[in-house]
Amino acid sequence: MSGFLGVLGGMGPAATADFLAKLVLMTPAASDQDHLPVIAQSIPTIPDRSSAILGQGPSPLPALTAGLARLRAAGCILAVMPCNSAHYWFDALAGTLPMLHIVDAVARSLRFQGIEGGPIGLLATGGTVAAGIYQDRLAGTGYDLVVPAPEDQVELVDPSIRAIKAGDLDGARVALRLALARLQTRGVGATVLGCTELPLVLRPEPAATHLLIDSTAALAQACVAALRDPVLGRAA
Amino acid sequence: MSGFLGVLGGMGPAATADFLAKLVLMTPAASDQDHLPVIAQSIPTIPDRSSAILGQGPSPLPALTAGLARLRAAGCILAVMPCNSAHYWFDALAGTLPMLHIVDAVARSLRFQGIEGGPIGLLATGGTVAAGIYQDRLAGTGYDLVVPAPEDQVELVDPSIRAIKAGDLDGARVALRLALARLQTRGVGATVLGCTELPLVLRPEPAATHLLIDSTAALAQACVAALRDPVLGRAA
Repeated sequence: MSGFLGVLGGMGPAATADFLAKLVLMTPAASDQDHLPVIAQSIPTIPDRSSAILGQGPSPLPALTAGLARLRAAGCILAVMPCNSAHYWFDALAGTLPMLHIVDAVARSLRFQGIEGGPIGLLATGGTVAAGIYQDRLAGTGYDLVVPAPEDQVELVDPSIRAIKAGDLDGARVALRLALARLQTRGVGATVLGCTELPLVLRPEPAATHLLIDSTAALAQACVAALRDPVLGRAA
Repeated sequence: MSGFLGVLGGMGPAATADFLAKLVLMTPAASDQDHLPVIAQSIPTIPDRSSAILGQGPSPLPALTAGLARLRAAGCILAVMPCNSAHYWFDALAGTLPMLHIVDAVARSLRFQGIEGGPIGLLATGGTVAAGIYQDRLAGTGYDLVVPAPEDQVELVDPSIRAIKAGDLDGARVALRLALARLQTRGVGATVLGCTELPLVLRPEPAATHLLIDSTAALAQACVAALRDPVLGRAA
């Protein structure tokens, strides 16, 4: 690889730091020099993506476009956005830099874990759910997305994501576990943490009967597969 | 603040992710938009700093200079290096961008914790210790640096730092605790984790009698003080 991986981040900044840590963790490396060269912009002033999708705030597209141009100018050859809701503008951003789509990364992670289809829970921002970012990208793949009831989305999930962004991780945990438990009663065997704030609070547990798919980790793994690991790369 | 905080990182990449996470944690913020805008380059191919200082490898200065120029071109107005050993080239890098020095940040953290002078332990790379990066910068401030015995540096500390960079955090912990315990027997009440890999393994504990000063956290706090928080800023 010549050139850098670009991270269009800051949505939110803790999720970006989490993504970078997972990228390091997932890269086979014996020393600093074995790791992927990355330029990450964490510019949290980008307008809120979920609000914009729901028509409640300004569009982040100009800031995303400027950020991607900045990453290209700095020498990046591939970019990712560790923010699910920002993928609403994925197609509008095409052309500046090649990008990996976070939903493709999640689908890859589902297959790796042996889940080939069927009902899958989705915990994400109201914007991601309403825009059908996962539903559209996974259409025809055999996965059937199960989203929280509208009142659970508004009363449990969205306030939890805002709490995490305000640094109140403990405050978010109980409400998120309740939303997750209600999804589980609807026949899903796995739930996608389809907002990169959520893995800061809910962690996949290896021995759990209900699988949690961490979209941040999935995106990091897709980057390693695309840029480094020949075995993972072939499986992608 | 207009313009971005630049992070000249990747030395190593896990330390850079840790720095970014601590920066988020230490910034008073109620939403994404309250956080500092950051551009971080994590380019781990920069030659090893400690080896270069000890005359055992190529100089990282050209790569550091290029990185700083890249950050300036991307819109950064202030830069930091979450790598203690890289500060050997701090003066040589002056002029491209204003920079905060990690030893100044550590000194500020020592004062905040009520340690005004006296013997202070230092766990750092062989390069940082040999070059006297801490000893020189703290000269005349009343702090007296106590470093590991040469054999402890070579047999315990340096291999531990290499192990952390190779992802073997557990493998490093026992040796580092032994090096730390030996420093403690020499009359120091606080020890600086003067390599940004070390806080990945040794964590300061609030109730501990022996204080550990995390240079990564200190640098993050200095950034917040310089760029955001008026109260902390005045105390800097």
